[in-house]
Amino acid sequence: MGSVDPSRLSLVLFARLSGLVVAVSVLYWALFLPNLGLSYSTLHPLLMVIGFILVSGEAILIHRWLPGSRKTKKAVHLWLQGMALASAVFGIWTKFHYQRGVFANFYSLHSWMGLLSVSLFAAQWVTGFMSFWHRGEVRTTRTTFLPWHVFLGLYTYGLAIATAETGLLEKLTFLQTKRNVPRRGSESMTVNGLGLGLALLGCIVITAAILPKYQSHSRDEKLVYSSQDRPKCLSS
Amino acid sequence: MGSVDPSRLSLVLFARLSGLVVAVSVLYWALFLPNLGLSYSTLHPLLMVIGFILVSGEAILIHRWLPGSRKTKKAVHLWLQGMALASAVFGIWTKFHYQRGVFANFYSLHSWMGLLSVSLFAAQWVTGFMSFWHRGEVRTTRTTFLPWHVFLGLYTYGLAIATAETGLLEKLTFLQTKRNVPRRGSESMTVNGLGLGLALLGCIVITAAILPKYQSHSRDEKLVYSSQDRPKCLSS
Repeated sequence: MGSVDPSRLSLVLFARLSGLVVAVSVLYWALFLPNLGLSYSTLHPLLMVIGFILVSGEAILIHRWLPGSRKTKKAVHLWLQGMALASAVFGIWTKFHYQRGVFANFYSLHSWMGLLSVSLFAAQWVTGFMSFWHRGEVRTTRTTFLPWHVFLGLYTYGLAIATAETGLLEKLTFLQTKRNVPRRGSESMTVNGLGLGLALLGCIVITAAILPKYQSHSRDEKLVYSSQDRPKCLSS
Repeated sequence: MGSVDPSRLSLVLFARLSGLVVAVSVLYWALFLPNLGLSYSTLHPLLMVIGFILVSGEAILIHRWLPGSRKTKKAVHLWLQGMALASAVFGIWTKFHYQRGVFANFYSLHSWMGLLSVSLFAAQWVTGFMSFWHRGEVRTTRTTFLPWHVFLGLYTYGLAIATAETGLLEKLTFLQTKRNVPRRGSESMTVNGLGLGLALLGCIVITAAILPKYQSHSRDEKLVYSSQDRPKCLSS
C-alpha cells in the first residue's frame, strides 16, 4: 500500500471540484432551462457528461488516491469504467429514437467522433479486462501493454471531452439559429461554462494521472521525465 | 547529434500524411465549396488549421527528427511556434470585422476556448523564449521547467484541436439550419473528414512527442514509463 502525497491529493480534490461544477451545470441546463425538457434530448448530455466523462475520470483517478492493494484498485477501476461504458452505450442509444430510423441521425462530426470515442473506450475496456483482470497474458506482455493502455486511455478520455464540446456547440448553435435562444442569455452562458469546466476537468485529471510523486516510496506506476539521460520527476 | 530511429520517423511521416489530408480538406472547403467564399470567414479556418495547428504540430515534431545541435532545434521550434502564434492572432483578428463592434462576436464557447488556447500558447511561447532561448534562468530552474513546458504545450495543442472541432460543428450546424446545406452533402462530409483528420493528427503528434526511442543512444529528452520501480520505455 503506497502513501498518497499532498500535491497529488490536492489535484484529485481540484478534479472533484471541477467535476462538481460540470455536474451542476449539466443538471441545471437539462432540468431547469426550458429548451431541453424531459426527453431523450435531456438524457443524452446527462448520460454522456455525468455517466461517461465524470465516472471515467473517477476511474482514472482511482490509481492516484485509493489506498489498498493493486488488485482492489484494478477492480474498482474496472467496475467504474464498466459503468462509464454502459452509460456511453445508453447515451448513444437515446439518439436512436428520432424520426427516420436508427442510423439517420449519425450524420454529424459530433456523432462520428462520439462513435470513435466509445469504440476506442470499449476496446480499451475489453483488452484491459483480458490482460489485467483475467490475467490471460503473461507478465512481460502485460508490462509492455500497460503504458499503451494508459496513453490510449488518456487519449480516449481527451477525445470524449472534445466530442462533448462539439455536442454543446452543435446544440447551442441549433437553439440560437432555429429557436432564437439569446446568445448571451442564461442558457448560452450555462452551456459555455459547462464547456470550460469540461476543458479544465480534462487538464486536471490528465495532470493527476501522469504526475508522479515528489518522492516515490511506493511500488506504484509512475511516469518519469528524463532529460539528457538524468531521470527526474515531473514534479521535481 | 542523435540518430533517429525508424519507429519515431514513421510516426513523423504518418503525422505529415494526416496533416496533408487536413490541409487539403480545409483548402477544398474554403476555396471550392460555395458557402464560405473568399472573405474573412474563409481566412479564419485557413489561418487556424494550417497556420496555427499544422505549423504548431511541425514545431512539436522538430525535436523528434531534425538532426543538428540542440540549439538549432530550439531555434527552429521557437520560430515555427512564433509563426503559429502570429497566425492564431491574425485568425482571431479576422473575427473583429463583423457587425456590432470588436467584442460582439465573442459570445460562443468556441470563441472562449479559442481565446483560452491562444492565451496559453502565447504564455508558453514567452516563458519558453525567456527560459530556453534567452537563457535568463539558471540551469536548475530550466530543468525543472522543461517537463511542465512539454506537458502544458501538448495540452494547449490538444485544446486548440478541440476548439477547431467546436468551430467546425458551429459553422456546419449554422449552415445546415440557416442555409439548408444538406447534412450528407459534399460540404458536410468534407468538414466531418477534416474533423476526424484533426483528431487523428492530434493523436499521432502527441504520440510522436512522448514516445522515446527503443534504445536511446543520444542525449535527447525522453519520456520514460516506470512500473514498479523498474524503468522502461513506452516502446519497449
